[in-house]
Amino acid sequence: MHDAVSHIRSEKLTNILSVQSAALKAIHDYMYDHDVVQAMPIILSPETDPLNHPHFDASVVYYGQKLHMTKSMILHKQLSLLNDGVDKIYFMSPNVRLEEGHLKESGRHLFEFTQVDIELKNKTKKDFVKFVDGLIVYVFRFVKRECSDELKALNRVLAAPKLPLRIYESEDLKTKYGENFESIVSEKAKDPFWIMNFKREFYDREDKKRRGYYHNYDMLWPEGYGEALSGGEREWEHEEIVRKMNERKTDLSRYDMYLKVSSQGLIPKTVGGGLGIERMVRFLTGQKHIRDVTLFPRVPGEKIVF
Amino acid sequence: MHDAVSHIRSEKLTNILSVQSAALKAIHDYMYDHDVVQAMPIILSPETDPLNHPHFDASVVYYGQKLHMTKSMILHKQLSLLNDGVDKIYFMSPNVRLEEGHLKESGRHLFEFTQVDIELKNKTKKDFVKFVDGLIVYVFRFVKRECSDELKALNRVLAAPKLPLRIYESEDLKTKYGENFESIVSEKAKDPFWIMNFKREFYDREDKKRRGYYHNYDMLWPEGYGEALSGGEREWEHEEIVRKMNERKTDLSRYDMYLKVSSQGLIPKTVGGGLGIERMVRFLTGQKHIRDVTLFPRVPGEKIVF
Repeated sequence: MHDAVSHIRSEKLTNILSVQSAALKAIHDYMYDHDVVQAMPIILSPETDPLNHPHFDASVVYYGQKLHMTKSMILHKQLSLLNDGVDKIYFMSPNVRLEEGHLKESGRHLFEFTQVDIELKNKTKKDFVKFVDGLIVYVFRFVKRECSDELKALNRVLAAPKLPLRIYESEDLKTKYGENFESIVSEKAKDPFWIMNFKREFYDREDKKRRGYYHNYDMLWPEGYGEALSGGEREWEHEEIVRKMNERKTDLSRYDMYLKVSSQGLIPKTVGGGLGIERMVRFLTGQKHIRDVTLFPRVPGEKIVF
Repeated sequence: MHDAVSHIRSEKLTNILSVQSAALKAIHDYMYDHDVVQAMPIILSPETDPLNHPHFDASVVYYGQKLHMTKSMILHKQLSLLNDGVDKIYFMSPNVRLEEGHLKESGRHLFEFTQVDIELKNKTKKDFVKFVDGLIVYVFRFVKRECSDELKALNRVLAAPKLPLRIYESEDLKTKYGENFESIVSEKAKDPFWIMNFKREFYDREDKKRRGYYHNYDMLWPEGYGEALSGGEREWEHEEIVRKMNERKTDLSRYDMYLKVSSQGLIPKTVGGGLGIERMVRFLTGQKHIRDVTLFPRVPGEKIVF
């Protein structure tokens, strides 16, 4: 208890919370200025992101229906853009991912965290990259202007990156640096950057003419801070969705309603991604472990005090 | 499935989402202008609001620890203000309350919803009322200015209320209107208003010299829309907290860490409250049922489609 209270009371955390507040304000300003509609997050739903890595179940039963805690709002983002009058949407979306305990060592995993989860309709990855490039520079500038004292107290020097941010292809980096290319390039980099093409969950679009090439991406923080954002263009055709679910040995019955929508050809063509707030704040404030930027740490495998 | 898709696609919802976006922007602007720090919500924790009304359990077990889904962040708001450099804080806090099905009839209950959950340190209920009065008028003006077309399409005429909002005492209203006074006064009212003094959860401050008088409040929407915000000055003394938990037959072992903090005299003197976003949007847009303002309705006892 004593440690958890000391953590909350630390002067360092005062400064970090100020930076976080400014960064959040900048995000909301940027979204509003770009006519991105903000909708409310969902915490429980019958169907959520399958997440293609090992983790524990987080669900409850309510009036006979099994409801899963949101691992990401990807499926709901796609559905929300069924509305003809909404072309751009974002959610401040808490995700609960009951990760395996070994991930506490990464310094950047929490078992609950918040994403700014953005989706744009009838746009491409090029559009999305440009939109996020602008967002990142806007946040940097805003935080530098509003929080110069806090950044000084935290010994953090931030330089707004030059646009456009660099874009790499994962295949090139793998050839050059081996399997661990993400960490290596993040360590070397001075500015945030993009890497294109990862084999991931079913919903990221695979090229039809070039199987094994995915129209998706990560954005990474420099200085070794690693992954900042994940996203991609999305699959919208029912046959592709089913094929890729089967390829990933997904239990299709768990996606009954989503597949009903896709089978009627209703899934809109979208692109998007989720930017982790706590990871962003960790980078902006230069903290070693992500636990240090949260009032109430939620580190995989660690006992929760409050 | 068809109904849920039609709901998402409705033109009415396009307009409602625009109003919601503007209202959220106005809230963030007002908070930032008043130096209220924004921190990130907690979804799972060992100790959460007990809620003194019947509802179903929503918890998971993770690495041997029972974690409850947030019913409100009241305890965490108090703890966060342990930080000496933070005097005002807010969270956009999703609450999960697995309510009994009969509440679907109220038109204003969801089993998950988002509160703007605010807490101020070393302030009184008078300060809080003034702060929220200002917020409400700011939101009204912003929405009227930014969403005149949407309000017109929704047939909704909004008049910014005159400040200060009226303050009633619950005892007076009960004498005049009987047990159902909240609905009756909400029906008659033209502007939002406050009612002081409700017997509720342990954490709302009871007057020491006048037992049975509570320094807490609701703010209500007019035109019959009912409860908008609940809050109060908080108990901070360990003996009072324990006495009131016992009075409410609370299992003290469920609040082990919180009581450790209070037993050391650490709980700060605070005042605050939570304003329901979906209820606010329902009022601003003049919708009959709260389900109509959400993309993915979460109505107590109703089957969830998406």
